[in-house]
Amino acid sequence: MFFGSDNTSGVHPEVMQALVKANDGFAPSYGSDPIMDEVRARVRDIFEAPDAAVFLVSTGSTANVLSLATFCAPWQKIYCHPLAHISTDECGAPEFHTGGAKLALVDGADGKISPDALRATIGATAQGDVHAVQRGPLSITNVTELGAVYSPAEVAKLCAIAKEWDLPCHLDGARFANALVASGATPAEMTWKAGIDVLSLGGTKNGLMGVEAVVIFDPEKAWEFELRRKRGGHLFSKHRFLSAQFLAYLTDDLWLTMARHANAMGGRLAQGIVGLPGGALLHPADANMVFAALARAAHMAARSAGAVYYPWPRDWPANGPKDEPLTARLVCSWSTTGEDIDRLLQAARG
Amino acid sequence: MFFGSDNTSGVHPEVMQALVKANDGFAPSYGSDPIMDEVRARVRDIFEAPDAAVFLVSTGSTANVLSLATFCAPWQKIYCHPLAHISTDECGAPEFHTGGAKLALVDGADGKISPDALRATIGATAQGDVHAVQRGPLSITNVTELGAVYSPAEVAKLCAIAKEWDLPCHLDGARFANALVASGATPAEMTWKAGIDVLSLGGTKNGLMGVEAVVIFDPEKAWEFELRRKRGGHLFSKHRFLSAQFLAYLTDDLWLTMARHANAMGGRLAQGIVGLPGGALLHPADANMVFAALARAAHMAARSAGAVYYPWPRDWPANGPKDEPLTARLVCSWSTTGEDIDRLLQAARG
Amino acid sequence: MFFGSDNTSGVHPEVMQALVKANDGFAPSYGSDPIMDEVRARVRDIFEAPDAAVFLVSTGSTANVLSLATFCAPWQKIYCHPLAHISTDECGAPEFHTGGAKLALVDGADGKISPDALRATIGATAQGDVHAVQRGPLSITNVTELGAVYSPAEVAKLCAIAKEWDLPCHLDGARFANALVASGATPAEMTWKAGIDVLSLGGTKNGLMGVEAVVIFDPEKAWEFELRRKRGGHLFSKHRFLSAQFLAYLTDDLWLTMARHANAMGGRLAQGIVGLPGGALLHPADANMVFAALARAAHMAARSAGAVYYPWPRDWPANGPKDEPLTARLVCSWSTTGEDIDRLLQAARG
Amino acid sequence: MFFGSDNTSGVHPEVMQALVKANDGFAPSYGSDPIMDEVRARVRDIFEAPDAAVFLVSTGSTANVLSLATFCAPWQKIYCHPLAHISTDECGAPEFHTGGAKLALVDGADGKISPDALRATIGATAQGDVHAVQRGPLSITNVTELGAVYSPAEVAKLCAIAKEWDLPCHLDGARFANALVASGATPAEMTWKAGIDVLSLGGTKNGLMGVEAVVIFDPEKAWEFELRRKRGGHLFSKHRFLSAQFLAYLTDDLWLTMARHANAMGGRLAQGIVGLPGGALLHPADANMVFAALARAAHMAARSAGAVYYPWPRDWPANGPKDEPLTARLVCSWSTTGEDIDRLLQAARG
Repeated sequence: MFFGSDNTSGVHPEVMQALVKANDGFAPSYGSDPIMDEVRARVRDIFEAPDAAVFLVSTGSTANVLSLATFCAPWQKIYCHPLAHISTDECGAPEFHTGGAKLALVDGADGKISPDALRATIGATAQGDVHAVQRGPLSITNVTELGAVYSPAEVAKLCAIAKEWDLPCHLDGARFANALVASGATPAEMTWKAGIDVLSLGGTKNGLMGVEAVVIFDPEKAWEFELRRKRGGHLFSKHRFLSAQFLAYLTDDLWLTMARHANAMGGRLAQGIVGLPGGALLHPADANMVFAALARAAHMAARSAGAVYYPWPRDWPANGPKDEPLTARLVCSWSTTGEDIDRLLQAARG
Repeated sequence: MFFGSDNTSGVHPEVMQALVKANDGFAPSYGSDPIMDEVRARVRDIFEAPDAAVFLVSTGSTANVLSLATFCAPWQKIYCHPLAHISTDECGAPEFHTGGAKLALVDGADGKISPDALRATIGATAQGDVHAVQRGPLSITNVTELGAVYSPAEVAKLCAIAKEWDLPCHLDGARFANALVASGATPAEMTWKAGIDVLSLGGTKNGLMGVEAVVIFDPEKAWEFELRRKRGGHLFSKHRFLSAQFLAYLTDDLWLTMARHANAMGGRLAQGIVGLPGGALLHPADANMVFAALARAAHMAARSAGAVYYPWPRDWPANGPKDEPLTARLVCSWSTTGEDIDRLLQAARG
Repeated sequence: MFFGSDNTSGVHPEVMQALVKANDGFAPSYGSDPIMDEVRARVRDIFEAPDAAVFLVSTGSTANVLSLATFCAPWQKIYCHPLAHISTDECGAPEFHTGGAKLALVDGADGKISPDALRATIGATAQGDVHAVQRGPLSITNVTELGAVYSPAEVAKLCAIAKEWDLPCHLDGARFANALVASGATPAEMTWKAGIDVLSLGGTKNGLMGVEAVVIFDPEKAWEFELRRKRGGHLFSKHRFLSAQFLAYLTDDLWLTMARHANAMGGRLAQGIVGLPGGALLHPADANMVFAALARAAHMAARSAGAVYYPWPRDWPANGPKDEPLTARLVCSWSTTGEDIDRLLQAARG
Repeated sequence: MFFGSDNTSGVHPEVMQALVKANDGFAPSYGSDPIMDEVRARVRDIFEAPDAAVFLVSTGSTANVLSLATFCAPWQKIYCHPLAHISTDECGAPEFHTGGAKLALVDGADGKISPDALRATIGATAQGDVHAVQRGPLSITNVTELGAVYSPAEVAKLCAIAKEWDLPCHLDGARFANALVASGATPAEMTWKAGIDVLSLGGTKNGLMGVEAVVIFDPEKAWEFELRRKRGGHLFSKHRFLSAQFLAYLTDDLWLTMARHANAMGGRLAQGIVGLPGGALLHPADANMVFAALARAAHMAARSAGAVYYPWPRDWPANGPKDEPLTARLVCSWSTTGEDIDRLLQAARG
């Protein structure tokens, strides 16, 4: 009963099989492997973006920070939500890779950036003021860090505001597949058609071993990205093993199938939780993450039964409120089973 | 007949098996997996270094530059050979990760740093001169980039010179296993007993998919290293898959067995080449790399038969000398077969 | 009638005289000038800090960011007020010089950091969490950016909180002399006795041409600071001209005399403003800066009469509220005269 | 008898007078002072470059590194002479301000870069090789660090080579005035007509207190430079005092008059030295610097008489050869007198 994070799950068997298959014989290194050609073609096809540049890296932080560094000067601000992964979970990697850029936090409900707040924050920087950190890229996270999903229209609205100042737009899609199947939109609608210039296309949290793609819709930035990847230490010599994972991911809609399953599990969990003692959802459980309140006793019972998940947003029982209910984050993945969920619910029910 | 690099080889079957095995169920992420505990214990045991800090990363450049950044202030110099990987093949990753340190190149035969040149170069920086980039770590590469192997005594001699100025010593051991079996020394003799403070312990070039260990003999630096790894984007969420590879690597001496095989193939290739038309070795083929001259016709015949390897140090036929012989680098790995070598030699023989 | 900033004032005649005197003949460069020895001795004496390291630089931003970089690792946070100069007016210089550190903004009235908010903010970073930007120095500004003055007890309270986590404490004293004479405290009480580890000791805003001292109470950090100063491009070759200014500054209490005058002018201005139509103070005018509301008509009349000062916090008339009163910042300096103030008040009175 | 460096001289009286004059009353800060408008116009006129961007900073290192950072990506190389100030005397400031670029050293006689070596070095970087630090700007120093002066034709030849690869060209003109009067060329011929894109136009070594101009012939880079200057901590608040110095410098050819005098003194010194015991010139004394050999006894006699100058290239007597002659660097400035030189020569003659 592991609901701590989707990255505690393993690798989908078809992906593992692809690794075994890719291991046959010798192959050119550093991204010149023929499997990468297939990956590139597949991504361009899926995103209806025949000129897009496509690169693979091994962690989500890397996908984010190399993307942002390519689109953000050292003296610029990155507009993002206070809970964005780049703000809270990357130990300053964006600041490091950009050469000292700044995050400008723009709040909003359910992890979504408020359009009004975004316009106000961007507007607050005086044009041509050399004393101020300058305006830079917008970075949106979809699925948000609170489990909600932006619709293409919501993404488009934020990007349109950024574009009023000609600012580039980045999408942290560590859970892009989950957002996609939740919204019913196409990959193009969710990205470049809505104004996104560069996408971190997650794989690791959704059944891969450690691969994320970066999709740059403006290919002029491709060479700079390649240099930044190499210089960051992020260019794999035995690159075929990244390619093989990602090709399997995109074959026969495996990525969507896994995301659909994870989301279904998330829905089932959310539904169950509201029926529990003290049960309530803190945010819309649009995809595979559930933020919920639960009676203290229910938590304790679930934990005793072996359920693993994290208090949220504050730690408890140590620092939590003495009065119930206590709040927590529970995450489902491609490998979460209905049985896992039922056992959790049953345990919590007491 | 792939002799382009040891990183064009695949993954040893036992390593692949370990990955499959590690894929069972859920596991804690970001290095908290129990397999990592075994890796740590194993490395400490093998290196007779019970306090050493042990970390895994996915590329050799990363192992090098995070190690160096941890031991080098931004205003210091790193002393290394002009052909060191950090100097020629990492696109300035050391400069980036250290925050702008400088490489001071110290030449010497066969890719080895000359002790006299090292002492002269370190000594040339005036003590306490605020205008000068300051003295910093020594970085040695073993196996060298020209295929030679430093003995423990040779490593110790260089480290002793660095220690005259209290400078830390780094070993780029992308091919450490090959150096070890070639020298007959123990891991401890090749590292901390000779004065090495931090080791990039290669795995990728020797049968892994993409894992290198960093071994820091002074554990006080461990936390800074962890922060730099995270901040660089190099902390894997599904870390168990790095751990599993490295545990397999160190189990039943697999790492040494693979290196011994690669070295044996290197020796067989070197021996064969000197018997070919125009055949001669440019550097001692102490391990798995052979730098050799060969008649132009012999090269062409080998290439026609499908042999893949790189001209060295200059490109040919385009830019090479018109007069024979032409020089090249050929690399063997754990998966190179005697038959591969025989076919190459036979083809070259014409 | 210039009230735009204290840096629109010129240089005190005695300082200019000192420059002329220092220009006699040749002198050793890069800080080895004998005048610097006098400066160092004088600063140590005034601060009752016989071991303090003392350096001169030419801008306030430089004093701040070199100080902070010396006490802050790239992966740490600097705790400061949202209106701190390092946050709003240095174009990301702290991020650049630290190698990508982050500012953590801690609000509070009148530009002062709230002790409770400081403790909560520092405490919110989980100990040993490699995913988070780590705790780093506290930076206090005295006089604050809103014209208030911290008492030694208030400084000590904030430093004590930082010290609970062993964090270093920096004081941005661009207007330190103004704070000092306003508080009646000694230099030692305002700094190291209250827990300050490093001080930006302003001169430029208080009658110098372009010199600030950095006083490091822990001399172990001195050499690193020197290297950062040089590497930043901030070591003057004809350093005697910095030394001469600062020596004149500290001679016969010139720095205090000028600050006392500026504060007196600030008080006179504040007193006058509250008697004007719509007149009110937004913050305590403890030193030489006055933040005030005034009827729109009064502003317009003052401007027509030639008074120069800036709308605050928002620009007007363009973006200001249509309804009066409008708010502004007015700054006095060593060269502001009582006559200037009387003319301003008279004009505004209509 | 100070021949240690031209920066041990003071400030020309007319410059000091200009400072006093500029000190009258209040003035807009941060470069908005009206004197700066005059400086800009004067520089554009002198350089026949009506669109050039002109900025003032306070140290030569700053002029160099901000210029280079504006024209060099972090993953590029700067081609310069091994003795270039940016390589030997700035404590890694170029590496810091560029975000980790690398210096590629290209040797040549008398401190001049050899054209053949330049072409070979640039050519040695393989096009499109992501593993290599990429090609970047050329940086030339005129007067060279060994006292020789490049002719416009020599500058043009080097720039033309760089332009074969579309690389930008920087001129470190810390002693630009000395080079100009020595060559008899116009400022335009020495810079943009020869292919220079950005110029560090020295003032400090030639009679100013601490001001250098940066002239960017392509104004598209101006805004980035401004941001880098601010972010580096190099934007002066009381900027009028930089402007005033530079305006005096360019008024009535003061800069050229001072440089002509310094060069004349250099010539007189060089001529005298070759007549001394063991006297010989190591490099052509084209401007105000003399590199000379002299009998040990002659050195000792000069020193005893109070002459100050530095051993070059190695320290002596401690580390110098026991056998004569010993070599040294002697620098003249605007304030060196013929009498100083005669006294030195007489003393050395014994």
